Amino acid sequence: MSFLDHIRACNNGDLSVQTRFCVAGENIGWVGPEIAETLLMQFDCFSREADAIVLTGAANTVEERSALMADVAAELSRLGVVDGLRDELFPAMRNWGEEPRFLIDRVAVPPFGLRAWGIHLNGYVRKADGLHLWIGRRASGKSTYPDLLDNTVAGGQPFNLTLRENLIKECGEEASITPAMAAQAVPVGCITYVREEKGRIKPDVMFCYDLEMPENFTPVNTDGELAGFYLLPAGEVMEIIRTTEEFKFNCNLVLIDFFIRHGLLTPDDEPDYTELCEGMRKGHAAS
Amino acid sequence: MSFLDHIRACNNGDLSVQTRFCVAGENIGWVGPEIAETLLMQFDCFSREADAIVLTGAANTVEERSALMADVAAELSRLGVVDGLRDELFPAMRNWGEEPRFLIDRVAVPPFGLRAWGIHLNGYVRKADGLHLWIGRRASGKSTYPDLLDNTVAGGQPFNLTLRENLIKECGEEASITPAMAAQAVPVGCITYVREEKGRIKPDVMFCYDLEMPENFTPVNTDGELAGFYLLPAGEVMEIIRTTEEFKFNCNLVLIDFFIRHGLLTPDDEPDYTELCEGMRKGHAAS
Repeated sequence: MSFLDHIRACNNGDLSVQTRFCVAGENIGWVGPEIAETLLMQFDCFSREADAIVLTGAANTVEERSALMADVAAELSRLGVVDGLRDELFPAMRNWGEEPRFLIDRVAVPPFGLRAWGIHLNGYVRKADGLHLWIGRRASGKSTYPDLLDNTVAGGQPFNLTLRENLIKECGEEASITPAMAAQAVPVGCITYVREEKGRIKPDVMFCYDLEMPENFTPVNTDGELAGFYLLPAGEVMEIIRTTEEFKFNCNLVLIDFFIRHGLLTPDDEPDYTELCEGMRKGHAAS
Repeated sequence: MSFLDHIRACNNGDLSVQTRFCVAGENIGWVGPEIAETLLMQFDCFSREADAIVLTGAANTVEERSALMADVAAELSRLGVVDGLRDELFPAMRNWGEEPRFLIDRVAVPPFGLRAWGIHLNGYVRKADGLHLWIGRRASGKSTYPDLLDNTVAGGQPFNLTLRENLIKECGEEASITPAMAAQAVPVGCITYVREEKGRIKPDVMFCYDLEMPENFTPVNTDGELAGFYLLPAGEVMEIIRTTEEFKFNCNLVLIDFFIRHGLLTPDDEPDYTELCEGMRKGHAAS
């Protein structure tokens, strides 16, 4: 393993076997061959135009498209293409803060290869012997990536909250961080990658936050998602990341970015430095 | 103007009218139509293969290639394609820290579209009312970008120094920052862009450093490159950058990156946030 390997693992997709998914003339996602066939066979609202699957013009407003996609999501669930609806709406859009093309149930985001948004927070303590990081361990019972190491706080970003509101909510649920303490978190950038999982493209965006914590604070999980927390010297976390796959795949990048921003990984000592900086912002893939 | 416009200005090149420049099977630069013709006409050591201009295999080691390129640089200077030699060697390579393909006089870097390396430092002061930044004003007599605003310290990166050594040297020359103070500077990432100037491609890398300075320190220029320094509230610097072209074009990006890393530009308030984070690491362009 190397730091760069984690970035490669997050950008493993082969877009040449995917079809562009376009709405109102804009490429906002990707569909694999099976999904493309299902969409064209089962629904009147999708058609193939040139090399893209297109949501046809019958629905022209956000509300109309969202109503249509609610039916599509329900039917995809009935057909077994996706699991049961989660009743949590995600926005289909290329950049955070813009008008969504439509809202769609969270479970139906992956088949359309839509960009998904999340927040990740690194809680750290400045000690006499250097920076220490609060690292979470995911619960054994979690459906995704059980037992792996994780950032201090992380979560998906629903449509109806600001990033800051969601951060405060997740800080409370995942780590018993009070709203007053969470308000001290500093937004420090975002990381983007284009991953493939089971033939589905996930162009994800992680908004990153740093939170300096007092030495006498210990995070406590309340929602059962984490088995516990460890306070580790930053150098030890670097070594775990550089040499193992103990962390959930995308959490590695949030920590590598932390190491770079805090001068723990330096361009004189790390030959992959330039590629690391560039590799953590691979963009949207859709064009 | 917007923050994003500065990133676009740094990535203005049209690579479709350029030819790849390849050494030992690797695309390490770009040459425009005129340079390509000159190289093929005037020198035996270049040939056209497929869609690339190739340094032929007669020179197989770094030393052999560097000797050859020294002759090429001298002849290009004699032909008036470049100005007089500067006797400062730059490495031809894709990533900092790797073995260079060859060394070449600094003046001959642009015609080959080689990646060029530099260091940029933001000196800042943490006051009760927020962060302030030390901003330089380039001298009127400077041959490039006279009178424009600049980062606290910036300079090209020669081959025979580490980045840290060069930073300490430039800190002394440009701002009278002592080696002891310069040693406190934190490397915080790099910014890459692919710019075209007069038909020549410049794929530049800027290694960025933050240096927190005491309130009682005032930088003083000693090498005549700067007319002076101003200590400005970060909000005021943001407004200058968002609305004007007062800064030298690439210094804007170093400051936008500073604003993002320090939480002064936030994803809830800046609709271009994701594009800004991605746009400042556009990569090498060569493939």
